[in-house]
Formats: sequence, structure tokens, C-alpha cells
Amino acid sequence: MMSSCKSFSNLEDILDKYIPEQELREVKRILFGKPTSCLEIPVEAVKLAEINFEVKTCKFEAKKEECRQPRLVRVGLIQNAIALPTTKPVEEQRVALHNKIKKIAEAAASLEVNILCLQEAWMMPFAFCTRERLPWNEFAESALHGPTTKFIQELCKALNMVIISPILERDDVTEVIWNTVVVIDETGAVLGKHRKNHIPRVGDFNESTYYAEGNTGHPVFQTRYGKIGVNICYGRHHPLNWLMFGINGAEIVFNPSATVGDLSEPLWGIEARNAAIANCYFTCAINRVGTEEFPNEFTSGDGKPAHKEFGEFYGSSYVAAPDGSRSSSLSRNKEGLLVAELDLNLCRQVKDVWCFQMTQRLPLYAESLTKAVDINYKPQIINKCNQ
Amino acid sequence: MMSSCKSFSNLEDILDKYIPEQELREVKRILFGKPTSCLEIPVEAVKLAEINFEVKTCKFEAKKEECRQPRLVRVGLIQNAIALPTTKPVEEQRVALHNKIKKIAEAAASLEVNILCLQEAWMMPFAFCTRERLPWNEFAESALHGPTTKFIQELCKALNMVIISPILERDDVTEVIWNTVVVIDETGAVLGKHRKNHIPRVGDFNESTYYAEGNTGHPVFQTRYGKIGVNICYGRHHPLNWLMFGINGAEIVFNPSATVGDLSEPLWGIEARNAAIANCYFTCAINRVGTEEFPNEFTSGDGKPAHKEFGEFYGSSYVAAPDGSRSSSLSRNKEGLLVAELDLNLCRQVKDVWCFQMTQRLPLYAESLTKAVDINYKPQIINKCNQ
Repeated sequence: MMSSCKSFSNLEDILDKYIPEQELREVKRILFGKPTSCLEIPVEAVKLAEINFEVKTCKFEAKKEECRQPRLVRVGLIQNAIALPTTKPVEEQRVALHNKIKKIAEAAASLEVNILCLQEAWMMPFAFCTRERLPWNEFAESALHGPTTKFIQELCKALNMVIISPILERDDVTEVIWNTVVVIDETGAVLGKHRKNHIPRVGDFNESTYYAEGNTGHPVFQTRYGKIGVNICYGRHHPLNWLMFGINGAEIVFNPSATVGDLSEPLWGIEARNAAIANCYFTCAINRVGTEEFPNEFTSGDGKPAHKEFGEFYGSSYVAAPDGSRSSSLSRNKEGLLVAELDLNLCRQVKDVWCFQMTQRLPLYAESLTKAVDINYKPQIINKCNQ
Repeated sequence: MMSSCKSFSNLEDILDKYIPEQELREVKRILFGKPTSCLEIPVEAVKLAEINFEVKTCKFEAKKEECRQPRLVRVGLIQNAIALPTTKPVEEQRVALHNKIKKIAEAAASLEVNILCLQEAWMMPFAFCTRERLPWNEFAESALHGPTTKFIQELCKALNMVIISPILERDDVTEVIWNTVVVIDETGAVLGKHRKNHIPRVGDFNESTYYAEGNTGHPVFQTRYGKIGVNICYGRHHPLNWLMFGINGAEIVFNPSATVGDLSEPLWGIEARNAAIANCYFTCAINRVGTEEFPNEFTSGDGKPAHKEFGEFYGSSYVAAPDGSRSSSLSRNKEGLLVAELDLNLCRQVKDVWCFQMTQRLPLYAESLTKAVDINYKPQIINKCNQ
């Protein structure tokens, strides 16, 4: 079905390979905006080469200001495949993922990453295609006390890093399941959590069978390294979700995702990047890689026969800046770590150039939306009869 | 300054020229979504060749349904340069533009266009860089009775077309100036008008010197060929502006623009396309071409010397579909006509697949925005102190 995914691993590689230098510069300017440079990889990071995953770096610079120092922060994005077959015991699968991420997080530390973000529901296979409750619900854990939070707390302390850990959460009191990110700071303290605001009902993404729309609003976490928000997966299709994180002051919004297929891939490079532009913050889009096979067959509501494989997750994680520029993507089919150095001063600098926040007329839209959600709303339609 | 513009006229041409077929297919799938085909150009349109502008066509198809016939509509987008030097008398300049557009509109008619959209303030040079009142304000005219509306009314009747005519408007009563589109139907009747909602203060775009934010809401015009909205130029940067046209039922939203430079070009392919995806309607982005030179020098607030030339408008008009696919662009530096056949059934079909409208939680955002515009709004910021 997704054979196309195998044919090449990275769009930018193809452009680089075939297009002559002068024209390539123009193509990239139009497609990807202002050129970015790479970070130097320090000597102690040569051990990276021993681990089998791709490492890419990128640097987004801002203009020098008289009254503010540069506010440099290094973010790390990890995209990975599951570590064991989905038929293994739940705890074994989870521990194997913990171990895999530990190695990549250590590589991130050697690249001086300050804030690391993992992919959506990183501690499990993305089993929601099956609509089976067991054993998948057994992966759900407490945001405060669960084994994954405990593991990440240790990692944060050891590596002096903020880590954004997207998990399947089971509420401590009600036992309700949620799709949640836990934000843990560099001291190992749980700064807070956020529950996915928009839940898909598309193709194999039967997530609404498992959990409902989040009830945590649009929190922005004030970390030592900057103000961050997290727009989980399908929320990237919703401009209002991105907007509210901006209104609450986010400078970086992470978008940990799990997505496959021809349907979403042409949208992937558009949405997080549009959000960075419209809201004048950095966005970090992360998608898993690999194909996950489940023990029992399931159907996809597409008229095709029952099958056991989810389509191939196409990776392609990237970072977009408020000025419309963006990093290169990680591979479509390899595990990887993308490290980007951001100068957060760029957010305000771009706000001052484009003035989108000044000109956005929020009071008009607060009023328009309030009218629009009234059950008696009459859309503003002009035809020959009502002129 | 804008020498880069001259180096090539079309991004897609470069990709086509250098990248081998199999890889090109993948590159285009990722960059531009599902492939589109071209329209057949009828025999009677061979006269097109006699006129010196580019013609491109594109066809967006929908699935067959049992209970609805395809709802095919052909839209035409015209991008052009001014017709005479800006030093000529106002009326001469306007009449020369009328004459130029008449020819291209006739070509559009031979391609059976139903709805034609012209570029922003098409009846004049984009003189707002100068901040001079005269003679530029003399181009402003009545939306109902002005010479351009009269000219377009005749054209609509003659060619059996709806035409969207963006003008500089002077209000009949108050004499206030607005940046306005007039929608005229195929009978020559003025269906209505809409005034630009968001006004830029960026670089040479000193438009807020001339006109203020529009007071006409987000009207959707019910034409014989479908429900259309118009998001004028800088409004494309505002997701809420796009959203309200969708809420009011638009199936096609036109974005007549005038934009230049490195700052906006990397955003150009992103924003109207993101709007098509997020709102499940077609979007049509139009930009002028050429460089406009003014009699007196002006500065651009960028520390550079005074000059008389606006940067080069980079054209690149295109159509984007709700499924994330898009047409090829018109040239960056040639006048042109893009004709796209849309099956409007695609809007509902994509809504049913992605369910963005069902899952967008408008009541949550109506409430959040209402709170956010309160002067005492306390952003939802989580730090160690307020846990």
C-alpha cells in the first residue's frame, strides 16, 4: 500500500542531488525560506556514530539587539520506531522503548539540548487502529507516578534537560484514559500536563474509541529555557488550537504526532509551518517511523480486506521558525534526532515586522465566534434576495 | 535588490527539468499532494496564442456520488502588470488597464470560465508605498457606480461570468476610502461588496495611511456557480479571517493580493493552501507581476536610500484544494491566466474524511477568545509557583 515510502528517504536529498547550485538556491528560498546553517557537533559526540540513527542539526538566528542578549535554546526532536514486536508483554515493550530513548537522549545531551520532545504515545505502539481494549489499555499510566514519568524524571536530572513526554494516561482518580503530554523540568519535577484537545476519527486513527477531547485548555509551560506549549498530533489541523497557545505566550510549540499515508503527508510540511508564521513562534513537528504490525486483523473502513499492519509512519520531523524558514526534515524511514538552536528573540522581531498580532482583531473574532456557536446563528450569506 | 526574481520564472519548471520521472512523482506528491490533470483547450481558444500572456489549466476531481451530480465550476485567476507608466493621467492608466483585462477576460470566456477574479486594486498601480495622497486617491471610485464597476458589469453580461473586481473604493456618502472587492454576477448585477479586514504596516505596504480595517464582516456571496468569499491580500496571514468565511459556508475563497519580496514569497505557497485544508474549501491566490516605478522617491523604513521602485511582484498565482492538492503556479514574472475546474463536491467529501469541522470545538474557542480579549485576561501559564 505504502510502497512509495520506500523509494526515497528525504525530499531535500533529492533536490540537492539533481538541481544545479544556483537554481537550487532559488528553489530552496521559495520552498523553505531563509537559509539556515548547521550546528557544530562537539568531539565528545563522536559516540553518536556508534548508534544507528540519523542526527541532523539546524540553527535559526535572530538579529542582534541593543537591549536584549540572544536567548539561545537548543531543542531536540526524536523520531523512532517501536522496539519490540507488539506481541511481547506490555512491560517488556515499554522497557525496551525506555532503553532505546535513553540512548538517543544521551546523544541529545552531548549536543547540549535543553528541551527534548518525544513522539506521541512514545511508550507504546500506536495500537488504536485495532479498537481492542486489551492489552493496549494496559499501557496507560499515571501522569504523576507512572513508570514512564519516573523514568523520564531520572533522565531529566541526569541530563539536565526539560523533557516533553507524550504518554497514554490513566487518570489517578477516575481511571479515565487520556492522550497526554507530561512536561518534566531539568530538576526532575513534573511541571504539568496537557491533554490532547482534538481527537481524530480518520482511517485507522480510531482514537475516539479510547479517549475524549482534552479538558486542560491551552497551558503554556514556563521553563527555564523559554515558554512552551504542546499541540498534540491531530490538533495541528486546527488553527484555533495553535492560536490559543500563542495567545497564552508560547515561544515554542511542539507537535508530537503519529501519522501515516498519502492523505496526510502533503499536509505535513504545511500545517506546523503555517502555525509558526501565523503565531510568530517556533514549531517542532515530530512523527514516528516504521510500520507496526498487530496480532489480530482489523479493517480500515476503506473497503479493503482486513489486515494486521498499520501503514508506514513517514517520520519527516522538522522545525519551523516564525519568519517562515524551516529546518531540513529527518528521514522518512529512519530513526533520528533533530537538534535545532533557536534564538527566541526572533519571535518578537518577526512580530514587529509583520504585526500579525497587532492586526488580528481578536475582539471581532471573539464576537463572531460567539455568534456562530449560537444554535440560531444565521450565516452572513448574500444573494439576490437579501441585498 | 530583487535580482533573484529574474533568475527563473517558475519553481515547478525547475523540478520538472532536473528531477528524473520516478523521483519527481514522489517529490510532487509530498510538495503538492494528489496529482491534478489539465483541461483541454478548445479550438476556438487558439486565438489565445495571439495574446502575450501565459495560460495554464488545472482540474480538481471529486469522487462520484449516488445522490449528487458533480458540481463543476471553472474559476479564472488573472495576474497582470500595470498597463502604462504611473506618470500618465489617472484616467488613461485606468482605461488602459480596463482594455488589457478585457482581452484576458475574453480568453477566460473561451475557456468557459464561470467565476473570474482579478488581482487586488487591479485598476491602478499599487501606489501605497508613496504615502502621497494625490494623484493616487483619485483612482478611488464608487463600488456601485464607478467607472470600473460599470466596465465590469458590461463584461459580465457579455461573457456570462461572475467577476470579482477588487478596487480602491470611495464611499458614496462619507467619502472614506476602502480597499474593497465588488462581486458582480453574470447578469451584470452588483451582488455585493466586501472591504479588506486586515491592513498591513509592513515594509512598503503603507496601506494604513490610506484606509482602515473593513466593516463588512465575512460575507459569502451565493452565486449561480457556488458560494464564494474573498479574503483580500494581507488577510491571508490571519487564520481567523479564513475561518469565518468557512463558517459562513464558502466553497471557494479568493485571495486577490499584491505582494513582493523575500519576506513573503516563502509564505505564499503555505498560507492559502493551509486555509484550503483547514476549512475544507478551495482557495485561489492571485498576485500581480512586474515592477512599478513612481514619479517621486520614497523610503522603505529599512535603512536603505530613497528610491522610486516598488520591489518586483512575484506573481505565482495558484489554486489549492481542500484535500491539500494544488495547481501549478503561474509564472513569477509573466502575465497570465490560470483556469481551474473545481468539483465543489470535493469540499463535503473531504469534510467527511478529516472531520475538522466536526472536531473543531468552536464553543471552546468562542469562550477562550472572549476571555482573552478581556483587559484583565490572565494567560494560562504554568510555572513552578502556580502548580
